[in-house]
Amino acid sequence: MTARQRPTMADVARHAGVSLKTVSRVVNQEPHVSGPLQRRVQEAINALGFRRNEAASRLARGAAMLTIGLVMENISNQFYAHLAAAVESAAAEHEALVVFGSYEERPERERMLVESMFARGVDSLILVPSAGGHSWLAELLGGGLRAVFVDRVPAGLPESSAVLLDDFKGGRLATEHLMARGHRRIALISDDENLSSVHDRARGYREALGTVDESLVTRGVFDPWRAAREVDRLLELPDPPTAFFATNNRAAIGILQALRTRRERPAFVGFDDFALADVFDPGVSVVRYDTALLGRTAVDLLLDGGPARMVRVPVELVVRGSGELPVTTSESASRRGRG
Amino acid sequence: MTARQRPTMADVARHAGVSLKTVSRVVNQEPHVSGPLQRRVQEAINALGFRRNEAASRLARGAAMLTIGLVMENISNQFYAHLAAAVESAAAEHEALVVFGSYEERPERERMLVESMFARGVDSLILVPSAGGHSWLAELLGGGLRAVFVDRVPAGLPESSAVLLDDFKGGRLATEHLMARGHRRIALISDDENLSSVHDRARGYREALGTVDESLVTRGVFDPWRAAREVDRLLELPDPPTAFFATNNRAAIGILQALRTRRERPAFVGFDDFALADVFDPGVSVVRYDTALLGRTAVDLLLDGGPARMVRVPVELVVRGSGELPVTTSESASRRGRG
Repeated sequence: MTARQRPTMADVARHAGVSLKTVSRVVNQEPHVSGPLQRRVQEAINALGFRRNEAASRLARGAAMLTIGLVMENISNQFYAHLAAAVESAAAEHEALVVFGSYEERPERERMLVESMFARGVDSLILVPSAGGHSWLAELLGGGLRAVFVDRVPAGLPESSAVLLDDFKGGRLATEHLMARGHRRIALISDDENLSSVHDRARGYREALGTVDESLVTRGVFDPWRAAREVDRLLELPDPPTAFFATNNRAAIGILQALRTRRERPAFVGFDDFALADVFDPGVSVVRYDTALLGRTAVDLLLDGGPARMVRVPVELVVRGSGELPVTTSESASRRGRG
Repeated sequence: MTARQRPTMADVARHAGVSLKTVSRVVNQEPHVSGPLQRRVQEAINALGFRRNEAASRLARGAAMLTIGLVMENISNQFYAHLAAAVESAAAEHEALVVFGSYEERPERERMLVESMFARGVDSLILVPSAGGHSWLAELLGGGLRAVFVDRVPAGLPESSAVLLDDFKGGRLATEHLMARGHRRIALISDDENLSSVHDRARGYREALGTVDESLVTRGVFDPWRAAREVDRLLELPDPPTAFFATNNRAAIGILQALRTRRERPAFVGFDDFALADVFDPGVSVVRYDTALLGRTAVDLLLDGGPARMVRVPVELVVRGSGELPVTTSESASRRGRG
């Protein structure tokens, strides 16, 4: 034991010449410790300056405490990493631990994770559901699982609590912002529209535009690499888009990657903020929200014990430069004599 | 149940008119199910095309399975998020779940997390230790906790397994790379040198340089904001650095942020790769390693049951532009008549 460390229950046990369990019983005021033993432990506590701390009391309460399951697409994605941090932080206020799992676009792994957790006594679940079917979940919900959905809701399930973003408004805001700079040929780089979040963001885009050129709409873009390829393809069209709306951070990053090697400077707005978005030149304009609020609200809904509720977390547009670029006729279009 | 979903044990139970538990017993070939009941369940299984799947068998084995604790600084940092994804992926191969916790530079929270997990039966731990003391951990290690340290090792503990990066070599590689372009005034933007990893990276920097100007060495830089302030301060020195070595991704990001608003174009190399490092212009040269290998090795060391071992994961220099910039006398220095 170094001078800087506080004495532990083990130090007390050694000093008193009793077992750790005896110290634990005395510290936690449990029965079945004889008077003389109690006094020996108390003397050791006084001699060492031991203070019953939160950790020790936690050690004593141990198994009775709550574990929250957090199942999501992929924790290595920034959105999920920040969500996990927020859930963990809110859970810690309830002395709850968080067990997490990533299903990486595989619905069968999502099911396996939730079932594994439930089998191990994790009956409180925060789930960012995949685009797959979820009828298997009904059985668990009927069997004692409590679940809160985050970011999107699966179709066809009995009512559960959910905390969602104002996706529709975000999609509309981003698109209207580009339209205010004169853009009309706005491409959509979109993920799987079976996800309610992506579906609603795309709906906001469509409502803002009124008439949509379907040749500018891409779907099923799961990663930056695919997004970059779509941007390249779209910018080579005879009548290319002058602006882009990316429905998530991976799509926005793909746009940045594609533009690195191109001369065109289309405007673009992304949904989801991401690290370094403000360090690029121009900075990346995004639809932003409070991820910490998203995670905290999920934990609140999970633990409040009330009836199922749906909460929408507000979104806002952050103006940094990329969304404010004017309409320019691309050089490649000019070269083809269409400028 | 939709057509796309496979039948569940609950479907079989409903079809056979028996309890879920009975179906589970039949499926898992447990005793205490009468012959007629067994046949009813089997008929329902055949009628519905139910297949005993991995999830179901997992449901049955349930509580016996392993849970690995993963305690680290902050899961919202890219390094930790990728490490968590790698640990989870490797754990899944052993059907193990991962419970995680972030201590956010607070050693007392680190201790609380580990003790909470241990109290709940998590006796297999992967720990990225804080810079604080760890004598409290000895008690748990003596009490049945298995632990593997990742990225750095705490001082003064009985021998435990660890998987570390070749930090010393990385620090030397980065610094020598800058020196090969003529840089001699190379500043160090460094985290807490009580962390063995940071200490070794700084040692590599010192060994490469031979003689170090201590006015160019900063310590205790935990976040990009502080790193950016240090870069600003150093570039305003009468004899400013012409290059920087950042000992982690947060410091490298701080350099990018500081340079966004400055005219100087110092060379720099970061330790840790990060998303978008290749999309900046110039791209950010970094010391890179295989985070998936780091996480996988940690799980292997945790589960192999052998004696304590230390494994070093190799590092390599990735050349992208920022580390290859030549020595330039800064404009601010020129304006002061020192050019």
